[in-house]
Amino acid sequence: MTAEIVSIGTELLLGNILNTNAQYLSCELAKLGINVFYETVVGDNRSRILDAYNTAFSRAEIVIATGGLGPTGDDITKEAAAEYFGLELEFHEPSWEKICSIFKTMHLNMSLSNKKQAMMPVGCTILDNNNGTAPGCYIEQDGKHLFLLPGPPNELIPMYENSVAPILRQFSGAVFVSKTIKICGIGESKAEEMLKDLIDAQENPTIAPYAKTSEVWFRVTASGNDESEARLAMSPVIDEIYKRFGENFYGEDDDSLAGVVVKLLSEKGLTLACAESCTGGSLTSTLVDFPGVSAVLLEGAVTYSNDAKVKRLGVDLETLESFGAVSSQTASEMAKGIVVTSGADIGVSTTGIAGPDGGSDEKPVGLVYIGLCIKGEVTVREYNFVGNRAKVRNRTVITALDTLRRELLARG
Amino acid sequence: MTAEIVSIGTELLLGNILNTNAQYLSCELAKLGINVFYETVVGDNRSRILDAYNTAFSRAEIVIATGGLGPTGDDITKEAAAEYFGLELEFHEPSWEKICSIFKTMHLNMSLSNKKQAMMPVGCTILDNNNGTAPGCYIEQDGKHLFLLPGPPNELIPMYENSVAPILRQFSGAVFVSKTIKICGIGESKAEEMLKDLIDAQENPTIAPYAKTSEVWFRVTASGNDESEARLAMSPVIDEIYKRFGENFYGEDDDSLAGVVVKLLSEKGLTLACAESCTGGSLTSTLVDFPGVSAVLLEGAVTYSNDAKVKRLGVDLETLESFGAVSSQTASEMAKGIVVTSGADIGVSTTGIAGPDGGSDEKPVGLVYIGLCIKGEVTVREYNFVGNRAKVRNRTVITALDTLRRELLARG
Repeated sequence: MTAEIVSIGTELLLGNILNTNAQYLSCELAKLGINVFYETVVGDNRSRILDAYNTAFSRAEIVIATGGLGPTGDDITKEAAAEYFGLELEFHEPSWEKICSIFKTMHLNMSLSNKKQAMMPVGCTILDNNNGTAPGCYIEQDGKHLFLLPGPPNELIPMYENSVAPILRQFSGAVFVSKTIKICGIGESKAEEMLKDLIDAQENPTIAPYAKTSEVWFRVTASGNDESEARLAMSPVIDEIYKRFGENFYGEDDDSLAGVVVKLLSEKGLTLACAESCTGGSLTSTLVDFPGVSAVLLEGAVTYSNDAKVKRLGVDLETLESFGAVSSQTASEMAKGIVVTSGADIGVSTTGIAGPDGGSDEKPVGLVYIGLCIKGEVTVREYNFVGNRAKVRNRTVITALDTLRRELLARG
Repeated sequence: MTAEIVSIGTELLLGNILNTNAQYLSCELAKLGINVFYETVVGDNRSRILDAYNTAFSRAEIVIATGGLGPTGDDITKEAAAEYFGLELEFHEPSWEKICSIFKTMHLNMSLSNKKQAMMPVGCTILDNNNGTAPGCYIEQDGKHLFLLPGPPNELIPMYENSVAPILRQFSGAVFVSKTIKICGIGESKAEEMLKDLIDAQENPTIAPYAKTSEVWFRVTASGNDESEARLAMSPVIDEIYKRFGENFYGEDDDSLAGVVVKLLSEKGLTLACAESCTGGSLTSTLVDFPGVSAVLLEGAVTYSNDAKVKRLGVDLETLESFGAVSSQTASEMAKGIVVTSGADIGVSTTGIAGPDGGSDEKPVGLVYIGLCIKGEVTVREYNFVGNRAKVRNRTVITALDTLRRELLARG
């Protein structure tokens, strides 16, 4: 079967937002083996939305439209869909109750316009939204399948996964399985070179690389008449990739570096505390992204000022004066200090120059020290990261997590 | 005049890359006041590219096509364009010499297929590429204007700026100026309702709303024969919007909430420290995103465990046992504690249940307390945020920053 994606929103045509939804949906449809030959972006304009539905359905049986399900007068995706299929809109009580309860818990004032979000095309299937007020909907008529999904990605993605993917899977004859293999500590071109023979020879499974900040992901996709056939085709290639990347391989699919670190700590019954300077709390925050972190994370100290480094972590004032806040010595004392003051088994520290100011010839922007203290033993590594303030801080967080991961693995 | 963007590349349809070019071009065309009503993505397929050109030119006079100018057999954007206009391709010697010299300086081996990149439609205007081997081209025929630009953004952007923008500027008589007005503390529909009469009556300037997590932005765009005329048209509407939103208005254009807070602290010569539980460091980290924060931010304490709350902040163990870590009392003692232990003028605290686990009937997921201590005086506010773990934490950070902003403004 063939699908098209119609992204609706004048903000897309003005370039105010990036169309990440189209990329997400493209990926997901490819996974299911559903062809996508065209994608369209159109503004919040009734006749042009109708035109886009018409054109898309002249070429495809499935159309996924995103955006324009909000409460304002601009939001007419649903109204245009009802018109396209010749359907009335009717008030959907359960959706309305859900919207009301969301507003109530958030202590927000509702406006009458919110009632519009509970008006649904007659006979459609409601797609529940557990992350926002706009319900989605699925209309099937004369072999045409139209899905309407909300624009915010944090609403669209769970709705696609929970409600749309199960329907689409029924349309797709072959079964596709895919696995994302996540690598840290090797650059993109080097990592691709290591798999060049496999990528050049790819048929089933296929291998697609994706570069992330300080990470590389490979998505391996195999097809078969059923799932076990697809998995059988995938298995030897996956094993070979694991073998080649060794300890640079850190996880699969939804694994995150922080999640892997939290799991390793948890398995080993070890506790962690972070002492951050240049990362400013984002190392601890990245760990806290992972639910269940409270069993292993005792605390984080964002000792941004020198004074805080001394008072909170017991860093020697003389160390700061002699070597500076961004130095191997300070990183070492921070890591040791957070272990001593928190009572954690492991302490990790970051100190660096994230820029744009603060750099010098001797200590340029991007210079970062990462310290690790495990049971009294301290190691510090020096890095020179390239990029702007956000990128330097981001690379520091990922590298600190990866350092921790490798250390935990090495200790068995 | 009206333009359309046609993005060409099967990698876009597979979701392997994000279509940042379309966003870039959309922004640039909006700046010139050139309408864009549709954007299309199509794969590397001759008949579908022809179809996309046909459709686009049936609706617009200007079409900007990106991608597919490379040396491989897949790259047929130019060939399809020549076919569309009934033009032959001819060998363009200067382009070929340039391609050869690029390969030479990069010490790369050329393949014969590179010669394809120097084959250009007869009569077209060559658009120089100083950052890659693919020349762009501009074909004008019967009032139709087709621009072919290379896919890599680092080639496309300079080519657009140097060669395309100067041509497009001739088409667009008017000059456009725009300003984004940023609001916090009012929901999207409520905020729009407050401007309904202005939005309904809009002509010049136009007003477009954008909802962000816990924020609403309005982009106001005005046109005129020159910049001062456009600014004159914009000015009374902007003033009216400021007046209506009062203290809910926090900034313009590139302003961020964290940046505004840092500036206010800096102006008032006040220092800040954060005590975080559920936000796990992301409040402090959001402040650290802003360069120059070191003058006002002393430290952050991510007291994730109860033990850390007691040891680092002096929260009473009895408070934690009687009321729990997520309570108004704990938030209050955390805010007071961070002020006492850090010596900062202002302390802000967060404690809540971000989920997915840890909620109860009495204390559901989304329950958050934000504490603020200014010169010994503590206030705590209770919130019930909706959404997943990331959203609850994100809303907490934004609300904490906004609370701080309002408090600083109120104190004059």
